[in-house]
Amino acid sequence: MNERVRIALDVMGGDFAPHEVIKGAVFAKKENSAIDIVLVGDKSSIEKHLSSFGEKDSFSVEHSSEVITMDDSPVSSVKRKKDSSIVKGVSLVRERKVEAFVSAGNTGAVVSASILYLGLLEGVQRPGIAIIIPTLTGSSLLIDVGANINPRPIHLLQYAIMAETYFRLILEKSNVKVGLLNIGEEETKGTDFMKECYKLLEASTLNFRGNIEPKDIFSGKCDVIICDGIVGNVALKVSEGLVETAGLFFNNILNSSMLAKAGALLLKPYLKKFSRMMDYAEYGGAPLLGVDGIVVIAHGRSDARAIKNALKFAGEEVKRNLNQLILESVNA
Amino acid sequence: MNERVRIALDVMGGDFAPHEVIKGAVFAKKENSAIDIVLVGDKSSIEKHLSSFGEKDSFSVEHSSEVITMDDSPVSSVKRKKDSSIVKGVSLVRERKVEAFVSAGNTGAVVSASILYLGLLEGVQRPGIAIIIPTLTGSSLLIDVGANINPRPIHLLQYAIMAETYFRLILEKSNVKVGLLNIGEEETKGTDFMKECYKLLEASTLNFRGNIEPKDIFSGKCDVIICDGIVGNVALKVSEGLVETAGLFFNNILNSSMLAKAGALLLKPYLKKFSRMMDYAEYGGAPLLGVDGIVVIAHGRSDARAIKNALKFAGEEVKRNLNQLILESVNA
Repeated sequence: MNERVRIALDVMGGDFAPHEVIKGAVFAKKENSAIDIVLVGDKSSIEKHLSSFGEKDSFSVEHSSEVITMDDSPVSSVKRKKDSSIVKGVSLVRERKVEAFVSAGNTGAVVSASILYLGLLEGVQRPGIAIIIPTLTGSSLLIDVGANINPRPIHLLQYAIMAETYFRLILEKSNVKVGLLNIGEEETKGTDFMKECYKLLEASTLNFRGNIEPKDIFSGKCDVIICDGIVGNVALKVSEGLVETAGLFFNNILNSSMLAKAGALLLKPYLKKFSRMMDYAEYGGAPLLGVDGIVVIAHGRSDARAIKNALKFAGEEVKRNLNQLILESVNA
Repeated sequence: MNERVRIALDVMGGDFAPHEVIKGAVFAKKENSAIDIVLVGDKSSIEKHLSSFGEKDSFSVEHSSEVITMDDSPVSSVKRKKDSSIVKGVSLVRERKVEAFVSAGNTGAVVSASILYLGLLEGVQRPGIAIIIPTLTGSSLLIDVGANINPRPIHLLQYAIMAETYFRLILEKSNVKVGLLNIGEEETKGTDFMKECYKLLEASTLNFRGNIEPKDIFSGKCDVIICDGIVGNVALKVSEGLVETAGLFFNNILNSSMLAKAGALLLKPYLKKFSRMMDYAEYGGAPLLGVDGIVVIAHGRSDARAIKNALKFAGEEVKRNLNQLILESVNA
């Protein structure tokens, strides 16, 4: 496909902004020249960085004078900081000046700005953040990982429907198996909230496989795993923390022993494969499903590769017309 | 210390019962002959296994004719199956025939039986399961990992008080740092429930360090990490699942490449150290804090080593008079 896609990128968001973010845009453009990227953020800083990459003319720039920081309160900051890169980027989507927005900034603010300025797809009651997680057999989708911390059961049913659509369309798999994340496999397990979710999912036309336990989320048993935003966030972040801790542990060892170093050298391709498997940067972005526009949330610690991949994913969602299909699924 | 400790062990509970459980009792007895172990379960099966270990006379046996399975509903099964090893074991504690009970059986049933037949320590409103988790710098305690899935904020405050006592007494550390597991560090993060817990913890005399994010639970930032039973169970089980997945991944590799095998051989002592660090069997058991008696819950997949360590931990709790101290702390 050679259709052009136009994507706004929040240059001020993320731990390594703006340098790594702009570098990611340069990578994405090199990989696929059919992506037109609008860099949103402080103009002079953007121009300085582009010059240093020798890429002055490949990008449009949309100046924004404010920044929503990681500490800003999501809801109030998107109302107050109208000239922030997040509000500006979302507004570009609303005005149809771009077809998607990618940000590694304050997740809550991106969600709030998207709800406030884009609105929800007809029939959708709450948006959810879906994240692609690695499994032994491929990938699964975990939703919601933090957009909505006080959901009602109907929201989780809608997450399932949206995620099933995403999985079919973007990850190209049919007969998508849906599971409800719960503390036990039996239907009677969990809180009243979880039991109600179970009933709704069971009564739906989805290929619902019942509860899936937390220890099985990396097993590939289910393609789509549904949960509330607190549970999803904890599952995701605990995994990240554990991988990071293991990395620190082994780094300490490699600095302490020559034999270990030799062993690690032999294992290197496999260690690399594993860390790539576990690496959020491989996927780069998490789609915010349910808002009336394509919004992709990148990890706060995104490096250039992660940003490049997030842009790529956003482009896929645009080209395949994800939201039209979600609209149809949710209202079927 | 050479005081004798008398502990009941549920021989019918756990994936590898009764063989591994009885073997664990034999290990524990060999390690510390001052532990008197009462094996609770099917008498003929116990005697057969003891004979095969050549240990016929080292243990008392308490026959029970019923078994609560993993699929049994906790609350109703402990009322119905009065002659189960779980109810029998808990009753031995109540009757002061033993000083502690260890079970790798149905966790919910052990919790229910303990509440029903032992009651709670004066002043305690709900029991919580604490689990020792490995960190880069030592160990932390995560509570609750599943005893109470619908807690009120006061329950979490009490978990913090009980866990602080446990940490001081059994893990021998002073100035215990307490954190609330939440999806962000700021006081304003999380659900209303979490915000209320924050306020209670902050107003307490505990060394409360605020919210701790899920990615940091293995960092050693906090000694005691408090959460509701759903979040704690998810955090714990996701970690287990990830370690297991990583293990499967590397096993596949080692079977496929000679070079990788050589590398792994050089790294073996370190891999072993890591897997031991991550291995629940090192600690063996999770204390059920708040009930009027010492009850230790072992992992369902406990092998003999895990059972041995659970018995050892139970013995420590008895000898150091844990519950007397918890009583004092909760009612201070």
